[in-house]
Amino acid sequence: MEQQRVKVGLVGFGTVGTGVAKLLCEHAAAITAKTGVRLELACVVDLDTATPRPVRLPDGVLTDKLERLLGDNSISIAVELVGGTTVAKDIQLKMLAAGKDVVTANKALLAAHGGELFRQARQRDRCIAFEASCAGGIPIVLAIRSGLVANTVTAMYGIVNGTCNYILSNMSAKDEEFEVVLARAQQRGFAEADPTLDISGGDSAHKLAILASIAFGYEISLEDIFVQGIENIAREDIRYGREMGYCLKLLAIAQRNPEGKVSLRVHPSFIAADCSLARVEGSFNAISVFGSAVGETLYYGRGAGMMPTASAVVADIIDVALGNSQRTFQHLQLKPRREVQSLIERMDDSVSRFYIRVMAKDEPGVVARYGKVLGDHQISISGALQHEGRGPDNTVPVVITTHRTQERNMAAALAELAESDVFGGQPVCVRIVDIPEDRDT
Amino acid sequence: MEQQRVKVGLVGFGTVGTGVAKLLCEHAAAITAKTGVRLELACVVDLDTATPRPVRLPDGVLTDKLERLLGDNSISIAVELVGGTTVAKDIQLKMLAAGKDVVTANKALLAAHGGELFRQARQRDRCIAFEASCAGGIPIVLAIRSGLVANTVTAMYGIVNGTCNYILSNMSAKDEEFEVVLARAQQRGFAEADPTLDISGGDSAHKLAILASIAFGYEISLEDIFVQGIENIAREDIRYGREMGYCLKLLAIAQRNPEGKVSLRVHPSFIAADCSLARVEGSFNAISVFGSAVGETLYYGRGAGMMPTASAVVADIIDVALGNSQRTFQHLQLKPRREVQSLIERMDDSVSRFYIRVMAKDEPGVVARYGKVLGDHQISISGALQHEGRGPDNTVPVVITTHRTQERNMAAALAELAESDVFGGQPVCVRIVDIPEDRDT
Repeated sequence: MEQQRVKVGLVGFGTVGTGVAKLLCEHAAAITAKTGVRLELACVVDLDTATPRPVRLPDGVLTDKLERLLGDNSISIAVELVGGTTVAKDIQLKMLAAGKDVVTANKALLAAHGGELFRQARQRDRCIAFEASCAGGIPIVLAIRSGLVANTVTAMYGIVNGTCNYILSNMSAKDEEFEVVLARAQQRGFAEADPTLDISGGDSAHKLAILASIAFGYEISLEDIFVQGIENIAREDIRYGREMGYCLKLLAIAQRNPEGKVSLRVHPSFIAADCSLARVEGSFNAISVFGSAVGETLYYGRGAGMMPTASAVVADIIDVALGNSQRTFQHLQLKPRREVQSLIERMDDSVSRFYIRVMAKDEPGVVARYGKVLGDHQISISGALQHEGRGPDNTVPVVITTHRTQERNMAAALAELAESDVFGGQPVCVRIVDIPEDRDT
Repeated sequence: MEQQRVKVGLVGFGTVGTGVAKLLCEHAAAITAKTGVRLELACVVDLDTATPRPVRLPDGVLTDKLERLLGDNSISIAVELVGGTTVAKDIQLKMLAAGKDVVTANKALLAAHGGELFRQARQRDRCIAFEASCAGGIPIVLAIRSGLVANTVTAMYGIVNGTCNYILSNMSAKDEEFEVVLARAQQRGFAEADPTLDISGGDSAHKLAILASIAFGYEISLEDIFVQGIENIAREDIRYGREMGYCLKLLAIAQRNPEGKVSLRVHPSFIAADCSLARVEGSFNAISVFGSAVGETLYYGRGAGMMPTASAVVADIIDVALGNSQRTFQHLQLKPRREVQSLIERMDDSVSRFYIRVMAKDEPGVVARYGKVLGDHQISISGALQHEGRGPDNTVPVVITTHRTQERNMAAALAELAESDVFGGQPVCVRIVDIPEDRDT
């Protein structure tokens, strides 16, 4: 079998870039043996060429000049690992213009400008491969794009942000406050110094935009996705939820509703404590994908980190080197925005169950009033929990869970509860997500 | 984007064949929209052309003449869903000789004659795609072959037989005997009328041979795999194991040992009750794959059934139609048998922990003798369980778990225990498998 030599250029020599360089330099022979492709890391571009990294590059490979990569016509695959949406976009466009296929882990960029970049790539007969942009080392893009290609995806439920899952599972396991766990997560490298993008749900929304695009074949915009973060989660709600049989996760959700519209949302979600996703702990990721033929499939692994993400980047490099990515990319048809907008369910119309906690004054008639407000908005109660004993200001936490109701009904009921003088301000409200059970019958 | 038309022929119109026909006939437009490929089911061959199936084939497609498929040069992809290792082998060879790429779900055939078939295919510049042969609808072949291609696989632990997992999880949940659960499994369609191939571990070994071949790049033979089934599992051992923190699963295991040899085995395995695979219930499958870069990844879903398996078959058909399978197959280099044999760990040398139950006479000195036999064979005790009260013949069950020891030591100790007149015959012995924990540190 003849070997195929492929030269690779890399922009961004940070954590993931270092991991990719390690795999390409130290694992080259094993990759060649498996695939017949000999990958050669010909150029690594970073503004910082001084800081030592834990990998030995061949002499002359490291440079701070992007032009060297762009101008080298022997480099056919260019990897963008700069991150962000401004410089990185410019770099990807230049890579495409220079005739290179692009591999990237940049979810923020694809979520914001994927449609435009994909069009540019296709015009130039190039491809963009992006396995590493979603869920790190888990081959989820491959699974949806190829493994489940014979299915209509009916729903996806993903834990796709390791920082949030680390925080929530630690809050739950140790009954600790958000701030305490966040500080520990930062110390241990599971949260950034500025964790905003993660804890706000923004990063999960980026990944959802990408996964939903390929699952449904829609050009999805971040505006299509309802996003709520975990910043305001209180440990007592995790505790009360657990008492009622639920586990709290930040889920990225894509669901086809019965009318065929797609609901896209990222929010803290109570899920049944005995379901598969409830058991995903720490910084791990998992995505449950429901297909029309296959039923439920679930994919689990490390969603971030140097080597897991590098594993996905290098898998893409090989797929491009073999010519497979190009074909799949060529046929990746996304319904354009103007058609898609009417196919996305408005959040107001979305139907859920809910967990609600109010701090009620401990006086006669309060629970009846609580029930009346909900009933007035056509919201039916499914469960309730009230422990004896007092909270601050002579109030007691009263938790109820509801049957399915529209977001608009719940919003109206919450506004009314918040206005009342007996319910201690804004109620806590967390959506309950009933992940379908695909079990033996 | 121009459409590519591809004609498909199918041999074997049973359960999975019907599912494949359904997807190709009823889902064709959706597949074309996603992939740009228009698949046309041009010929379905089965000896039984009379029995109605729940799919409407186009007129003239169904035939009992294999020659019609083989002789139609417009059919480029041939799907073999006959099963078995004799007729099916002949059919696949004829398909290849007729210039067709082959898609199959036939694990028994690939495990027995994969090397030969692959060589034939390569000589004729054709490919064989076999996603559906392992774990039904879970895209595990794709994940190992492409998603994790940048990794050295260090270990795999798979629940790959739904019948066995259905039986073991039901025995465990309901504390029922093997025969009772097997009968129910047969009634409900989770076990064949003749369940031998499943419960003996043979079917799991077929799948392990295929998965290990692509994970390690070895031409693996069934002789390389140690196989033990679940026929002799008693419900009390499941119960005692659970008391000690374990869950019983039939695992297909491939592990690289520290010397670089690969251990391949299928046997009932006690695994930690809180690990991911322990939570796989009923007829579901899951495979945990450890990669050198990615750490643990896990894949879960339905391992059998009409539509899940059809989902995998059609994914392969599309992959072949796009030309991707051919490239990957071309480069699938398997180290030949004569080199592989020295790389497989002998079962005698294999190291495990063990669960052992003897029925000991309830008399002084018995436990000391038990301990002495094990100690004499360098086997160290890790845990013990003896409930008060008597069993039959004035004996009591005494359960111990051991630290790691070689199979040869355990075999010798078991032989000695079996010979003794105080331990009530052959001891029960189940391997304990400590799946590595890939957790946050």
